Amino acid sequence: MIMMDDQSFELACPLPMSDKKTVQLAHGGGGRLMRELIQEVFVRTFDNPLLAPLHDGATWPVERGTLAFTTDSYVVRPLFFPGGDIGRLAVHGTVNDLAMCGAKPLYLSAGFILEEGLSVDVLRQVVKSMAEAARAAGVSIVTGDTKVVDRGKGDGIFINTAGVGLVPDGVHISPQSVRPGDAILVSGDLGSHGVAVLSVREGLSFAGEVQSDSAPLHGVVEDLIGSGVETHCLRDLTRGGLASALNEIGEAAGVGIVIDEAAIPILDPVRGACELLGLDPLYVANEGRFVAIVPSSQVEPALAVMRRHAVSGRAALIGSVTDRPLPPVVLQTVVGTTRILDLLSGEQLPRIC
Amino acid sequence: MIMMDDQSFELACPLPMSDKKTVQLAHGGGGRLMRELIQEVFVRTFDNPLLAPLHDGATWPVERGTLAFTTDSYVVRPLFFPGGDIGRLAVHGTVNDLAMCGAKPLYLSAGFILEEGLSVDVLRQVVKSMAEAARAAGVSIVTGDTKVVDRGKGDGIFINTAGVGLVPDGVHISPQSVRPGDAILVSGDLGSHGVAVLSVREGLSFAGEVQSDSAPLHGVVEDLIGSGVETHCLRDLTRGGLASALNEIGEAAGVGIVIDEAAIPILDPVRGACELLGLDPLYVANEGRFVAIVPSSQVEPALAVMRRHAVSGRAALIGSVTDRPLPPVVLQTVVGTTRILDLLSGEQLPRIC
Repeated sequence: MIMMDDQSFELACPLPMSDKKTVQLAHGGGGRLMRELIQEVFVRTFDNPLLAPLHDGATWPVERGTLAFTTDSYVVRPLFFPGGDIGRLAVHGTVNDLAMCGAKPLYLSAGFILEEGLSVDVLRQVVKSMAEAARAAGVSIVTGDTKVVDRGKGDGIFINTAGVGLVPDGVHISPQSVRPGDAILVSGDLGSHGVAVLSVREGLSFAGEVQSDSAPLHGVVEDLIGSGVETHCLRDLTRGGLASALNEIGEAAGVGIVIDEAAIPILDPVRGACELLGLDPLYVANEGRFVAIVPSSQVEPALAVMRRHAVSGRAALIGSVTDRPLPPVVLQTVVGTTRILDLLSGEQLPRIC
Repeated sequence: MIMMDDQSFELACPLPMSDKKTVQLAHGGGGRLMRELIQEVFVRTFDNPLLAPLHDGATWPVERGTLAFTTDSYVVRPLFFPGGDIGRLAVHGTVNDLAMCGAKPLYLSAGFILEEGLSVDVLRQVVKSMAEAARAAGVSIVTGDTKVVDRGKGDGIFINTAGVGLVPDGVHISPQSVRPGDAILVSGDLGSHGVAVLSVREGLSFAGEVQSDSAPLHGVVEDLIGSGVETHCLRDLTRGGLASALNEIGEAAGVGIVIDEAAIPILDPVRGACELLGLDPLYVANEGRFVAIVPSSQVEPALAVMRRHAVSGRAALIGSVTDRPLPPVVLQTVVGTTRILDLLSGEQLPRIC
């Protein structure tokens, strides 16, 4: 990353950003226009002391410990949807991946790939939303990069965020810690994010009724760990939803998982929309929901901790881990039958995150 | 990131990846196809113990120290060019940003945005190139993400890499450390990367004659620091080239910089191509070149260290820092005149990295 300080900025800037209503190829070219874009749109909005020196990277001191490192790119379409936007998603998604490692999220990077012709106002709005989401989650966006691609070679804005966090001593959250007999808890109702995005994308009449669940999850995870709940595994329920996440954990841990359809919280408008559209809410993406796998003896304390956070107020026990390895995930349906929850070949909804 | 272990992979995979010759939207969908792509293309190629657990992020222990964190996205067109490709660039660029902070690069993340219809063989080739570049640079790619966008909404492959490195105690490399009287050293000949990319993009007849300079720079930086050379500032000469980098440093440090045109190494075919195309090589992007700013008393030892590394074998003293703050960068030309090297509004060549 090349960024600049704003010394003698006024002198050096005969054409203020506000004269450019759209992003141009030159905004990615390493010259004056890029410097103005970075300074006026990114640095002023993300404002923090690690970003301010504007060197090729950010540096900070660490104590001895365990670091967590993760990345995700965001290509959601449209950029704005009920309950969120691509900027908010880009912060929450990476904060949540760190939280799922048991880490306290510390710092994020932000890499933008902008399409020539993008409205600068739209970019400002997305960046503002990222800054707000970062502030609310207690993380700083400390380094970044901007590239511009020709019109028709991108789609408005793609964002990559990477994140670094610190895992408390003694925390070992991983599928390999899962044991037969463990309980499966879900943090809240499923499917809202996917349905909210789809509703605006397809111009459906229930648009606005369903809001994305996009939210940071590190607070409740920190509380779970801090409260002494023995947390074996955590997984946020993004692309592929609950069914895919449980398949991944089941296969990685070499265990079976049985879940109870009647216990899985799904809001009525989400259930209705899924029925109408032929979607299975168990496979729909969420951006503020996770499963926690804990010993059966820890179900009550874990649910008590989860329910005191708004983001997981509807936490529920939905199933248990068995020693049967194949098929990994079985659903006990509301009509008393059982159904194998396999991995789908792809997501039901493309570009949902 | 969601990745999977390969337990029961053969059982679970009725359609091996090789049956899919091109990337499909479902490859980004969180289901079976994505799992196969990640497993067969990414995990097997990037093979390392931190990536293997395939959790939402990678974790590792750290000792007390100073961390560096950086990110860059790569959108170079075409994907392959003389002397490199987008994968190699994506590793070198981020390794070099860490090196410019004085850090020893440790771990990289890799975020892919693939366009529907991309040849899987092309993707394999790029990933293999990343793995080789990472191995050669002594870094591991420990976490990643894959998204697929609809045909016509991307351009083959975009890659984001973020990197984490460790800064040795007592190292404070930053524009703020630059002092009037300091010497400006350049690590080698300029302009090859930009000219190499342009040559294939535009089908010019000198294609192949000029190779990209893409290379990792952390080895020579580590040696500079380890040899006790008092290194005030380092900057790699990517987008915007030498002229833009010196402008940034000059403005950030509040100093002037005077450089001597005759001392700047430029290869004859690069100079010829630039003359033909109306490009100024001082503004052309490099991917394996940097400036080092050191006290004037340290010029000889610094050049001696730089010249023992192949990547900086042509290192040269090209100028000095003055206390004149504006204009920040002045070139003394070969014909005895002086010329202000200002920031251009954009890069002369779009999508060069």
